[in-house]
This record gives sequence, structure tokens and C-alpha cells, in this order.
Amino acid sequence: MTLLETLAIDLPIIQAPMAGVSSPAMAAAVSNAGALGSIGVGATDANGAQKMIAEVRARTSRSLHVNVFCHQPPKADAALEAAWLARLRPHFEKFGAQPPERLREIYRTFLDDDAMLAAFVAAQPRVVSFHFGLPSAERIRALREAGIVLIASATNAAEGRAAVSAGVQAVVAQGYEAGGHRGVSDPDAHDDRLGTIALTRLLVRELDIPVIAAGGIMDGAGISAALRLGAAAAMLGTAFIACPESEADAGFRAALASNAAHHTTITRAISGRPARCLANAFTALSAGVADRDVPAYPLAYDAGKALNAAAKAAGETRFGAQWAGQGAPLARALPAADLIATLAREMR
Amino acid sequence: MTLLETLAIDLPIIQAPMAGVSSPAMAAAVSNAGALGSIGVGATDANGAQKMIAEVRARTSRSLHVNVFCHQPPKADAALEAAWLARLRPHFEKFGAQPPERLREIYRTFLDDDAMLAAFVAAQPRVVSFHFGLPSAERIRALREAGIVLIASATNAAEGRAAVSAGVQAVVAQGYEAGGHRGVSDPDAHDDRLGTIALTRLLVRELDIPVIAAGGIMDGAGISAALRLGAAAAMLGTAFIACPESEADAGFRAALASNAAHHTTITRAISGRPARCLANAFTALSAGVADRDVPAYPLAYDAGKALNAAAKAAGETRFGAQWAGQGAPLARALPAADLIATLAREMR
Repeated sequence: MTLLETLAIDLPIIQAPMAGVSSPAMAAAVSNAGALGSIGVGATDANGAQKMIAEVRARTSRSLHVNVFCHQPPKADAALEAAWLARLRPHFEKFGAQPPERLREIYRTFLDDDAMLAAFVAAQPRVVSFHFGLPSAERIRALREAGIVLIASATNAAEGRAAVSAGVQAVVAQGYEAGGHRGVSDPDAHDDRLGTIALTRLLVRELDIPVIAAGGIMDGAGISAALRLGAAAAMLGTAFIACPESEADAGFRAALASNAAHHTTITRAISGRPARCLANAFTALSAGVADRDVPAYPLAYDAGKALNAAAKAAGETRFGAQWAGQGAPLARALPAADLIATLAREMR
Repeated sequence: MTLLETLAIDLPIIQAPMAGVSSPAMAAAVSNAGALGSIGVGATDANGAQKMIAEVRARTSRSLHVNVFCHQPPKADAALEAAWLARLRPHFEKFGAQPPERLREIYRTFLDDDAMLAAFVAAQPRVVSFHFGLPSAERIRALREAGIVLIASATNAAEGRAAVSAGVQAVVAQGYEAGGHRGVSDPDAHDDRLGTIALTRLLVRELDIPVIAAGGIMDGAGISAALRLGAAAAMLGTAFIACPESEADAGFRAALASNAAHHTTITRAISGRPARCLANAFTALSAGVADRDVPAYPLAYDAGKALNAAAKAAGETRFGAQWAGQGAPLARALPAADLIATLAREMR
């Protein structure tokens, strides 16, 4: 069975799940166009996920891919968190605001979220994927028994092997070029920063399951190249940010359409985990910040989102989590269905 | 005229010039096999270059590509250099050796090397390429008038545009994955670290001259992918390190064939410029060293080579400049001609 058959899609194109950017409308449009539409539910709870899945279902009966975050829950460190908030205070004050008094664990990890597991087993999306790690064997069994296809991210061969051992059916080879959060299972481990070409070839040669290439792919040429590398499909995220169905705000869209798109950088200061973002005021303030000074994900994200909200309230849009990959200058503001049709045409 | 016609080669494959690793025998074998063989003369003078070119010519009448380094000459900074040598002293002492008393400019930049220019004009290799920057308009004119095809490295769109303006006939899109020295014209400028896929697409779309993709490409699948990205050819370096014609020493070959190949890192502490190396004892000691503390290229390289020599004399091979790209685990120890034949077969 090929990956496309397993996923029940026509085209080797997967729209990346981007919590906060991809929407049920986007996922439905992509799936109706023959590719795999995706939503990320890492920034909501089981109720929110159920609603999002229902919204997609109202628009399409085709395959849906739901992504969850499988990070280790953060260990509280009051001194570190207080120091971080003190460090951010002057930036809040520039916008006439105050940092939160303490950092909350704003997103629950799927590793211990029984309600989310139950929601998936009940709703049976075609595909569930894991980012930041892998859930327990029990949870994987429950999802598999519900007939759900499982996919995991890998940024290196060891993560790829772990995903295969855990019993997933495909691996996303997430290259260093990719926008948003690096899928690394341990953000404090050394990162070899493998690019999409090298990582895809390494995983295709080493793993017995299909590999999905991600990172820097923006058009049909990139998708064709990924297939030549031996990938069974390509995953594109940044290519969809400018779609009308995207939840990207006006500031993000303007930055993406400007020369700013030529500069992205990996930062962990926004969320607590390394993620690739358009170089903006937030990444600038985080330059030179030592990794160990940043509270763990998602604690840091509580402050990061508050700072962005304070900045936006003062008319400053450059503190957003403007996650984007290195192909950002090639983003196109097309409706998602038109983008899929364009990609399919370019591939031929 | 296509790039292959311009270069007078049959296959869209360029063996990367690797000073210290590629050899006249390798270049000749590659060119005789229908690809573009290359030598790097950045680590020798005009006399040495003439000899190397003659050695290639004795073995083939096909195209030859000669690469030169076009770095800005280093500014002397006695205090910085003394501090650097003091910092390295304990490492030398571990091997019963002493650091050099002062750092010498061991390699001359092509920017002011009249003898090298004259040697090229006289010998007329088919192709000369520039790394680390571009020579003056005069020098470019002299080379062009001698009928030499010119190529320059680019790690971003601005460097690509500069190369086109200078009048070169093709650009190497050197992705972040690539082994050896980053071609950045200013090592102290911010580096967006563009991967091969994104960089190739950006340059193919923006520039009016052929683009050669480099970085992470190790096999026919990688070359085919590069062509799908719109590149006119692919440049492979790491793929040739293990060839018998390579000048890589036994320690480097052993590291490349081991699990160590899975870990490369960019360091500027070995040579004074950022370069991707197998993670080894030298890159480990340079972790945490601030860029500003490292003397400029090639001053730092004088100490780096001395430290490696001291270590090797004591039986320790892990202080070498083991330049390699992220595809290192895919290197094959084949004679260069067999490797080219294998790559050509894999592409089909």
C-alpha cells in the first residue's frame, strides 16, 4: 500500500498543521483539492479539537490530519521564570503593559491528555501526527485500534528510528529550513541541524516506512525534488500562510509579503522551544539569550503571547510568533484550493 | 548555450574543489568520466597552481575547474592573535608541543595575487571559480578575455546578485548543509543559513544565469532533485572525500566511515572562517568560543594546522580540518570514475 493509499489522498502534498495559522477551512479546502488538509490542536483542548474536527467535517468527507504536541511537561522553576519575566518587563513597559505575574502551562501535552485521546478515538480523523516526541505504547495502540494512521516528526536518524519502533506508519523528515517549531524530542540535546535534502536521503535509506519531506518546499519544483529524494510526499507549511483561509494576522501577512521574508531565524525565546520565525522585533530581543535562561515550553509561550498582545494593542505587530520557513519569499496569497491546483500543475 | 555546453561536460555533475582533499588525479578522473573535475588552489601559490594544472593536463584534455579564495586580506590584531595563541597553548601542551609564536598569513587572497592571475591567463583552465567574494572588474575581464568561464559561490540572494553583476556565467548555490568553508563574502555579517532547497529555488527564480546546487547532495537521487529545483547542475564535495584519489588522511577517512559522520558542525575556530566539519576534538574545543575572539582567515588557520600537526604527531587524529557536509554518512569509497558512473546510473 502506498502512502497516498494509506492517507486516501490523490496528490503527494500535505499541508502542514500550523497551530494558530492553519484553520478548519484551510484543511477542508486542501483535502477537497486532493491533498491532505491538516489542523494543529496543540494550542487547544479536547473540546476545541472536537469543534475544529467538526468544522472540517462540515466542509469535506475526505481525509483529515490532526497534529498534537507530545512535549515533556515542563518542570516548574520559580527563580528562572521570575528572572525571565523581569528580563521581559522593560519590553512590556515600552507598550504601557506589565508582564504576567507568573507563567502558566498554557497548553497540555498529548502525553497525558486523556480527553484528547478520547476525542480522537471518537472522531477518528484519518491521520494523527506527533510533534516533539511520541506518546506511550498504550496511546499509540488505542489510536491504531481506532483505525487512525499515525505519523511522527523526525529531525535526525535516531528520532526516525524511535518513530518506527513506536509503530507509526510514516515519518516527517523535518529539515532545518522548516518554519515553526523544530520537532526535536529533547530541545536541550545537541541539534545537528540537518537540512531537508540530507535528512530525507538519510531517513529514506535507513527507515522501512514512507518518509515525508518538509522544510523549504514551496512549489511544484520543490515537491518534485522531494519525490526524487525518495520521499513519498512533501509537507508544505509556509506556502499556506498567505492563503485567505489562514489565521495569520495582518501584521504577519504584511511581513511575509515584504523583504522581511528573506530573513528567518531559530529562536526559543518566544515559546520555550526552538522554532523558526521571520526575523522580527521578538527574535531581535531574543538574540544573545542563552537557552538555559528561557523557561521550558509552553511556559515561555505564556509570556511570549502576552508580549505580542501588548505590542499589538500599541500598534506594533513585530512581536508575533511569525513562524515561517526559509522559503518564505516564495509564499503566494492564493486560496488553498487554487494553491493545491497550482502545485499539482507545477509538478507535472 | 546550456551550462553543460559552456563547461564542455556531459553530465550535470561538478566535483567540488576541496583544497587539501581534491587532487589533480581526482579532477582528471572526474573529467574523463564526463563530469567537471576541480582543484582548489587556495592553499598554494601560483607555482603550486601551475604544477597542479599541469598534473591534471597530463591525465586529461577535458575541462578543468580551478577554484580560488577571494577573501579580504586579514587585518593584523596582535592582541587578539596573542590571546588566541594563549588560549590554544594548553591544547598544544597536551601533545608536548608549543603554539607558533605568531600567526602568519599562510594563504594569499586571489584579490591581489597577480602571479596567480597570470598563471590562469597562461594556462587557461576551462573554468575558474571564486569563493569568499569576487575579484575586481579588471581581474574578471582578464580571465574572461582569456576564454575562461567564471563561476562564483552564493549563500544568499544578495551574493547571487553581486555575482551576476560582476559578470560570472554561473552561480553555486551553496546551502547550509555543505561541507567546508561557507562561501559568505563577509564572515561577520548575519548569516540566514539558507538550506540548499530554499536557496536554489530563490536563486533560480531571481537570477538570469545558471545555478549549480551544492550542499547535502551525495547520490543520483540528490542530483536529480537538484535538477528538479531548476539547478543546471549539482556540485558534490563530501561524496568524493573517500575516493582513493582524495588527499584525505587516514584519520579523516576513518572518521568519515564511522558513526562520527552523522555529526557535523560549523566552526570558525579552525581556520578563521565558518566551515562545516565533522564534529571532532577541534570542533569540541571551539564550542563556546565567540566569533570575535578568533583571528581572521587565514591567520587562525596557521594555528589550526599547527595544532593538528602536533596532535597527529602524538597519534591523535581528531584535530584535523575534517571538512564535510551533512550527507557525510552517505559517502562511498569508490574510485572517482566509478563514483561518477554510479551517480550517472542512479540519476536515470
